[in-house]
Amino acid sequence: MRITMIGSGNVATHLAAAFKNAGHYIAQVYSRDMHHAALLAYHVGAEAIDDLQKVNPETDLLVISVKDDAIIPIAKDLARYQKLTVHTSGATDIEALSAIIANAGVFYPLQTLSKNKEVDFKTVPLCIEGANEEIALQLDQLAQTISHKVYRINSVQRKTLHLAAVFACNFPNYLYDVARQLLEKQQMEFEMLRPLILETAQKVQDHLPAEVQTGPAIRNDQSTMGAHLQMLDDKPALKTIYTLLSQQIITNDNAGH
Amino acid sequence: MRITMIGSGNVATHLAAAFKNAGHYIAQVYSRDMHHAALLAYHVGAEAIDDLQKVNPETDLLVISVKDDAIIPIAKDLARYQKLTVHTSGATDIEALSAIIANAGVFYPLQTLSKNKEVDFKTVPLCIEGANEEIALQLDQLAQTISHKVYRINSVQRKTLHLAAVFACNFPNYLYDVARQLLEKQQMEFEMLRPLILETAQKVQDHLPAEVQTGPAIRNDQSTMGAHLQMLDDKPALKTIYTLLSQQIITNDNAGH
Repeated sequence: MRITMIGSGNVATHLAAAFKNAGHYIAQVYSRDMHHAALLAYHVGAEAIDDLQKVNPETDLLVISVKDDAIIPIAKDLARYQKLTVHTSGATDIEALSAIIANAGVFYPLQTLSKNKEVDFKTVPLCIEGANEEIALQLDQLAQTISHKVYRINSVQRKTLHLAAVFACNFPNYLYDVARQLLEKQQMEFEMLRPLILETAQKVQDHLPAEVQTGPAIRNDQSTMGAHLQMLDDKPALKTIYTLLSQQIITNDNAGH
Repeated sequence: MRITMIGSGNVATHLAAAFKNAGHYIAQVYSRDMHHAALLAYHVGAEAIDDLQKVNPETDLLVISVKDDAIIPIAKDLARYQKLTVHTSGATDIEALSAIIANAGVFYPLQTLSKNKEVDFKTVPLCIEGANEEIALQLDQLAQTISHKVYRINSVQRKTLHLAAVFACNFPNYLYDVARQLLEKQQMEFEMLRPLILETAQKVQDHLPAEVQTGPAIRNDQSTMGAHLQMLDDKPALKTIYTLLSQQIITNDNAGH
């Protein structure tokens, strides 16, 4: 397929590389910032542009991968081409592409993508939605060329998935940093916790989280939790987080989950 | 070494197996519950006992791996043997072994151990402490036979490490379950999130968490966070957790961490 990338951020960068690796042709990369456009364009052998007027109409797919609040104005601008157009946002309804709805779809990679970290795209779940069945099929086929895990979900499901990803990824990563800060205060290296963090994630690859929950809260070990809270006496926010999450683990367990 | 296991829980089970695999001899396994003692004893070729009076004094090391509040009474009971005696608790001071302090140490594996999940013990950080340098050296040598990652830390550091492990492991695992519950409500499988969870943990294996933080909070994307909070309207506890953790991510970032 001949693909035009609108955007040059983390998602655009990883998607463009995956498309190119799968044998697709990246025609152009657009960014408001020519420098950013040029950098990604160089990597995928595309033309860099910083003006939506310069989008070449000879393309099969326009991929809008920009900040959520820029999707609607850009979609309006691109509507004149009447080409297959997708956005890549987990939090955004397909209706954001209403200006071009007859050709609209969503192509949402469910992964934490940073420019400085490579990822095997074959393992990245791709969540697709089409304004109609024909579009959905076309996106499904395209998705299969770059990933083994393709899911068809609707906009309501996708928004839930995006919220769930915050709990499954963004919040755990912040808690890793809390742990690092606690260790630092006692002259210990974050390195000590890395095997624990990895094993915690590996455990739920073939178990459900509730089956492998460990720690003082699931044992309702009040004396350890009391000692932990005392150690957090000078960190009121962490104390609140500790209390709240521990209570939830205890309650969750009692609910039989 | 000739080793006696006092306890038959998760930590005792994994440690006993690791010792045996490294060529040590497990003489006896004690549990108050003969059934539990017998099960582990069978796996490691040891004698099962359910009475501390029956501990064979011909042993090189007594490993107390029981609930934290049982360590002190058991240590008192075992003091008459005057053998090298360690506990395996992250949350417990070496002073809990004061009845036998001249022969006391700590042997704390920093990992989330479930009986139903095997783990490569070579990668498990072992945190050791000795009542004196001679004991520390002896435990260091023993630890090296079963793990590549041996750390010498004191009781204050170990308690901090144990607290940090709650933030790095127990709380993330609970948040995985929150994500699972959110998906379930919309007829989606937890399977969709597994690659994201694994990648989140893999990312911090060679980066620091703050370097790879993603999501709406780190972007201070108020509109997405607002939409997420609205989706949690019927779940007040999750709403509080979402708000609190997001605020922390924003503040943490501003603090330049």
